[in-house]
Amino acid sequence: MPSINRQWLFASRPEGAVTAKNFERREGPIPEPGANEMLVRTRMISIAPANRAWMQGVTYRDKLEPGVVMPGSGVAEVVRSNVAGFNQGDIVEGTVGWQDYSIQTAASVRKRDQATPHEALIGVLGGTGLTAYFGTLDVARPLPGETFVVSAAAGAVGSIAAQIGKIAGCRVVGVAGGAEKCAWLVRELGLDAAVDYRSPTMLDDMRKACPDGIDSYFDNTGGAILDAALALMNEHGRVASCGYISQYNDEKPGPGPAGLLQMLVSKRIRMEGFLLMDYFPQREKAEKALKAWHASGLLKAPVHIVEGLDNTPQALADMFAGANLGKFVVRVS
Amino acid sequence: MPSINRQWLFASRPEGAVTAKNFERREGPIPEPGANEMLVRTRMISIAPANRAWMQGVTYRDKLEPGVVMPGSGVAEVVRSNVAGFNQGDIVEGTVGWQDYSIQTAASVRKRDQATPHEALIGVLGGTGLTAYFGTLDVARPLPGETFVVSAAAGAVGSIAAQIGKIAGCRVVGVAGGAEKCAWLVRELGLDAAVDYRSPTMLDDMRKACPDGIDSYFDNTGGAILDAALALMNEHGRVASCGYISQYNDEKPGPGPAGLLQMLVSKRIRMEGFLLMDYFPQREKAEKALKAWHASGLLKAPVHIVEGLDNTPQALADMFAGANLGKFVVRVS
Repeated sequence: MPSINRQWLFASRPEGAVTAKNFERREGPIPEPGANEMLVRTRMISIAPANRAWMQGVTYRDKLEPGVVMPGSGVAEVVRSNVAGFNQGDIVEGTVGWQDYSIQTAASVRKRDQATPHEALIGVLGGTGLTAYFGTLDVARPLPGETFVVSAAAGAVGSIAAQIGKIAGCRVVGVAGGAEKCAWLVRELGLDAAVDYRSPTMLDDMRKACPDGIDSYFDNTGGAILDAALALMNEHGRVASCGYISQYNDEKPGPGPAGLLQMLVSKRIRMEGFLLMDYFPQREKAEKALKAWHASGLLKAPVHIVEGLDNTPQALADMFAGANLGKFVVRVS
Repeated sequence: MPSINRQWLFASRPEGAVTAKNFERREGPIPEPGANEMLVRTRMISIAPANRAWMQGVTYRDKLEPGVVMPGSGVAEVVRSNVAGFNQGDIVEGTVGWQDYSIQTAASVRKRDQATPHEALIGVLGGTGLTAYFGTLDVARPLPGETFVVSAAAGAVGSIAAQIGKIAGCRVVGVAGGAEKCAWLVRELGLDAAVDYRSPTMLDDMRKACPDGIDSYFDNTGGAILDAALALMNEHGRVASCGYISQYNDEKPGPGPAGLLQMLVSKRIRMEGFLLMDYFPQREKAEKALKAWHASGLLKAPVHIVEGLDNTPQALADMFAGANLGKFVVRVS
């Protein structure tokens, strides 16, 4: 076991795109767990668009201030425990941060299955899968036969949400960047069509992909894709606002969609933001469903794995450049 | 009975604010009802913000083209009927248009009580009251003890919605233009506080009027009032989008609220547009409740009555200048 704790500090607020230079590497001693605490060793870190949002302003958590260890969820192994019910070798999930070691409590982590690959614990069976599950089935609520559109459909949450739409009997159209990702969505995930948001004819392409209009839309991006989805939305359409990655690099809050109110009223659209934390009391049912779908092959769980804690800052920058198909994780140990 | 049919045509699309010059007066013969038709004489016309929206673009109805009789809902009396179940002297409600006479069918009108004042049939017991009822209780859904904010609260729908919020046990804050209207909201309608949207300190004023934040918001205006309401909204807040009068005079669709997506997601806000027509199957229950509240004095029904069909175009312009307290109607005969 190493004797130092490598840590990545959030060092400077990005101006525009986040880069590896916004982080600073530090080495320190391995912390000692006190009473009712445990020392855990990070095994895998989740790289997520929300990481960038935390740097920019207040979200569901306080705005990050430079100098702190970069927060981030992940999977860790218990090294030494003063907490009843947690033993050496246990696998836990929580906000481990971008570091080798952290101190956790019974309340700050959740025990997970030791035999399941860590990328699945973080991805399809973790927060990613649960976010997709509740955002789709409780907020977007696509019905069988309806057209369900998902943006960032080649990303972590989007790829799961789109597949849940297929399981729910919908025509599913994924939006992604580039012909390669679009082809992958249809070929590998079985979506009915895919739209390249970088195309100058994006709105027309989406119209062709959705000949009956759009009934519900899972929004991971905001921006021009949201505008197009609203323009093509049918009466009583639903927008599940999960994220707005198109604006995370912006200095100031972006404008809302033009003509939003006219469309909301005339088409009686419901637009609703959600956060996974509100669904924690209901997660067992969702986990059971995700596990069964995944085990049966109905739900694929693409992952993009980068090796080594040292590469974590670059991983976040790469995610914003669109490097990943599916869930982006860093394997630490 | 007059022998001519005075009509106001929609003559030109307004550039900016609507004025009486956008309409043209015409006189024509009184039309003859055919089989299964009836001739009705307009008694009272409803003046509503939606009239202006129809001129600008596609809404829940096609964009108005110059040359047609200006549509508008109202109350009329049956003059001659070839429709079973409708007799001379019956009072009906429907899209009578800005004219003395129109031809209607059994499907185009609804029979109403003859003894009720026409302004109540159009206002508190008509589309105005029903819009406020369903927008408040089905979309905004304020709970007892919560803070409920209503924009254009001195207007037709707003004044009813705000009072329904009081009946539902909420702290109700109305937003209106000018100190006089604000004082009236508190004094006459019994609201807990009122905010003048013309004040340069509007956001601060609203913050003071809503010390516990805003839980639900009935939006008749869009624009800066919506921005302020979203900024002060609590987690799991609801926005019922009824209209957006601040944008009806605009050439192009206005931008959506800045930072909308960040707020929707972080605060898990639901924003939902609605139209009364979707609630027609449920209207009996609502009419019963409105009638009882009105009869008991719990629900006041302020009206602003202008006399004479000839003054209808100016009435619409005056409404956009904020002339009315409560429902704005034109008495025709």
